[in-house]
Amino acid sequence: MTLEGKQLIGQQAVRGTRGEIQAINPSSSQGLEPVYAGGTPDDVARACELAEAAFDTYRETSLEERATFLETIAEEIEALGDALIERASDESGLPIPRIEGERGRTCGQLRLFANVVRAGEWLDVRVDPALPERAPLPRADLRQRHIALGPVAVFGASNFPLAFSVAGGDTASALAAGCPVVVKAHSAHPGTSELVGRAIQKAVARCELPEGVFSLLYDADIELGQALVADPRIKAVGFTGSRRGGQALVATAQARPEPIPVYAEMSAINPVFALPAALEARGESMAEGFVGSLNLGAGQFCTNPGLVIAVKGPALDTFVEAAGRAVRDSAGQTMLTPGIHDAYTRGVDNLANHDRTREVARGQAGEQPNQCRPGLFVTAAADFLADEALQAEVFGATSLVVECADEAEVRQVAEHLEGQLTATLQLDDADHDSARALLPILERKAGRILVNGWPTGVEVCHAMVHGGPYPATSDSRTTSVGSAAIQRFLRPVCYQNLPDDLLPEALRESNPYQLNRLVDGRREG
Amino acid sequence: MTLEGKQLIGQQAVRGTRGEIQAINPSSSQGLEPVYAGGTPDDVARACELAEAAFDTYRETSLEERATFLETIAEEIEALGDALIERASDESGLPIPRIEGERGRTCGQLRLFANVVRAGEWLDVRVDPALPERAPLPRADLRQRHIALGPVAVFGASNFPLAFSVAGGDTASALAAGCPVVVKAHSAHPGTSELVGRAIQKAVARCELPEGVFSLLYDADIELGQALVADPRIKAVGFTGSRRGGQALVATAQARPEPIPVYAEMSAINPVFALPAALEARGESMAEGFVGSLNLGAGQFCTNPGLVIAVKGPALDTFVEAAGRAVRDSAGQTMLTPGIHDAYTRGVDNLANHDRTREVARGQAGEQPNQCRPGLFVTAAADFLADEALQAEVFGATSLVVECADEAEVRQVAEHLEGQLTATLQLDDADHDSARALLPILERKAGRILVNGWPTGVEVCHAMVHGGPYPATSDSRTTSVGSAAIQRFLRPVCYQNLPDDLLPEALRESNPYQLNRLVDGRREG
Repeated sequence: MTLEGKQLIGQQAVRGTRGEIQAINPSSSQGLEPVYAGGTPDDVARACELAEAAFDTYRETSLEERATFLETIAEEIEALGDALIERASDESGLPIPRIEGERGRTCGQLRLFANVVRAGEWLDVRVDPALPERAPLPRADLRQRHIALGPVAVFGASNFPLAFSVAGGDTASALAAGCPVVVKAHSAHPGTSELVGRAIQKAVARCELPEGVFSLLYDADIELGQALVADPRIKAVGFTGSRRGGQALVATAQARPEPIPVYAEMSAINPVFALPAALEARGESMAEGFVGSLNLGAGQFCTNPGLVIAVKGPALDTFVEAAGRAVRDSAGQTMLTPGIHDAYTRGVDNLANHDRTREVARGQAGEQPNQCRPGLFVTAAADFLADEALQAEVFGATSLVVECADEAEVRQVAEHLEGQLTATLQLDDADHDSARALLPILERKAGRILVNGWPTGVEVCHAMVHGGPYPATSDSRTTSVGSAAIQRFLRPVCYQNLPDDLLPEALRESNPYQLNRLVDGRREG
Repeated sequence: MTLEGKQLIGQQAVRGTRGEIQAINPSSSQGLEPVYAGGTPDDVARACELAEAAFDTYRETSLEERATFLETIAEEIEALGDALIERASDESGLPIPRIEGERGRTCGQLRLFANVVRAGEWLDVRVDPALPERAPLPRADLRQRHIALGPVAVFGASNFPLAFSVAGGDTASALAAGCPVVVKAHSAHPGTSELVGRAIQKAVARCELPEGVFSLLYDADIELGQALVADPRIKAVGFTGSRRGGQALVATAQARPEPIPVYAEMSAINPVFALPAALEARGESMAEGFVGSLNLGAGQFCTNPGLVIAVKGPALDTFVEAAGRAVRDSAGQTMLTPGIHDAYTRGVDNLANHDRTREVARGQAGEQPNQCRPGLFVTAAADFLADEALQAEVFGATSLVVECADEAEVRQVAEHLEGQLTATLQLDDADHDSARALLPILERKAGRILVNGWPTGVEVCHAMVHGGPYPATSDSRTTSVGSAAIQRFLRPVCYQNLPDDLLPEALRESNPYQLNRLVDGRREG
């Protein structure tokens, strides 16, 4: 497939006219052809108009039709073959095997949602049968299902050019819920976006769905994205990116005559608590695991372990020394974009120049452009507690160790943390009491709690929570990874005394989809 | 129990110091003793401090303990006996039988949530067992449950002094979820609020729960309520009232450093679509049912049918004439407060003086103070479409009939509507095709769709949705009535590789609560 440098609006390919968007291969700093251009307010309006027109039809596709559509998208992405892998690697600087893995995850995610759609748990069907004889008043027949919210705007993320982008988790879960999707492509990988967008566009056609089910727009600045969120036909937003970016979209969504939900996954430093017995028993191997997680993908994961919290003493010193050695031995890795590399460099410099931190180690300086030097710093708990700036996320392979006087101060630091995607406990048997004292705090602070693992590596499954209290996300009640992500794009509707033939199929007396239903508050089946 | 005119902060009774709050018996315009006073910022801080201190303990009470607590509240409310009924009737002008019914509903609601807590569906337990042999990467053991959001601020509503007030649906569902509650009493029924608050306070003590699980504050203006929503320890808000009031709370909640969800049930005009065959066959009896629903509780229900939409012609004329006769025969009913009566009078005057409406009938003028005169008006669809003001809610027993040229215009009016709590279809067999064409629109507009009933009368059950798109509520993804209301106050947490003894009980391998669980995406039997 030849890249045309065009937006995809329904089944059309439309050249933008605003500004220039060109991907840069961060490994070489070379620009990649073609040059894209941003869309206009008219393009936003056209995409939203098509999405709205598609909505009532698409949301009432049968479970099987919708599941097949998701599977067809996965097939079409796979059919892109090496062209997709090479382009995504060129645009992101991420190595080929990583991109291949990410493609597997992206297609696996689409197939997971296909199965979720078929299982129909997301409909949350509830039936309270009529009680005509009840005194003093009879009860009507009441049935509930969930329906799709409406067209959804999805903002692709830079750090997962496949799995959190055009056909990523937000798109997959919104389509699974029955929502048409309008994607705003991330400018760092416009070619990858076009390729994946064309795959979805083909799947729409193959499945004979209304064309407005999917559109892909480009934005040379932030105006198109803002216009998309402000469009009255858009009913929810999915976003993964910076805190400032997420907050701007939330503000726009709230300022609408009809405010809408924004699911923004924004920032986290993912604290790791190294508890005393574990630290004593295996500080060195823990350091190895830690730096491995820190360096993964050049530290460009939302779940990168940016903070280690422990009681100071010889065991922590051993850990810090070992981690320092591993960081010093770390080769530079190419970051996603020159902009991300610059921001990383500034963030590390801020830590290095902070008068209450000590530099433990820096990694090797890379010889290629845009390579990060990993960093490890130490500070005292009292200093950490005194300066919010030390909680700022440095997007990349840098972490800060917080030395606490005792376990009470460990808990104090935990209480002081902002909302997080994850919190990790490194513990041994003798640490269980300490863990028990920390867990209630961590549950209030994070969406996922890990023991003796590392936060990078987010499994796409049913129990996953990739979410957490503000500012980790804008909405702690949800997850952006895993099958529960579908719930973000649904709302309940109750049907009172509808004749069976007017009821949605899922609610009919014959239960044609054989759905698990809550009948009079009891689980059927 | 003698009313002391005090706030309840944990187990203390604390006299407010800001302004005067005195209930007025709307039937007589007489003030009722005692005079209350509003709380201070210190009172807010103290209530929130206690709520925060209670949170970790309360949210981890066993299912049985928490269910028993809810049942104990119901018992304590019933133990208040006639004193509660009389006070609530005096403060609201609502007749004794209505208040008795509302007490039954309030206590029934608490007991329903007790059963919901015990059943544990709300935990949404998901288990994805470890796959240590999976290639290329093993899967960790991942388990999910829902936990309470944190302390919740609840704003009592005027129109249900029991069922939507201190121990109403918001409080019951928040307590069921494991959230401590700080109630801001509605100034129209401070005595009823104190009585019910004392009942909850007693139940907290009887169940030996931390005192901060419940507090009750008063507000002479809007400052305390705003301070409560702004307090960083509050994590969600429940509100039933006006659109302006709800919007003000949403704005405050969004302006916090950590924005929080606000569940505001605000305004609706609850359209009724009288379809042609039904109108032809039974216009007169339909008119009777309609005016009965309109007059219920002096029209002071969120689900009052404020709009009737139909194709013009002789059948509609017959309906309008019959409804007009019934309205003219309607006696005045005492409204909840002088303020509500004044607002109602202004709202009806606006309709009456609108140059594109025609007055069909007004009800009888009451001889008591604060009595409403029901009203029925007619307008043309073109005029309705041209003026948003005709969609404004008139809180009370007034309705507007919209005459459409044809069924296409009926659908056009439906599309033009703002978000609603309910939409009703009056239909006969021959109307099913018309209904099918309307239903997709109504699903997008309303939380509950009724056939051949009237929207007043909201069943407290599992399938109920008392919610709907903005501005009916601030969050269409939820309901404020029925067992699903508990979900508003929960968020998911994922536990990765936790040793069994560190897992919350609900997630342990032995499944001690015998919960229904989603294992590897399949419902466990």
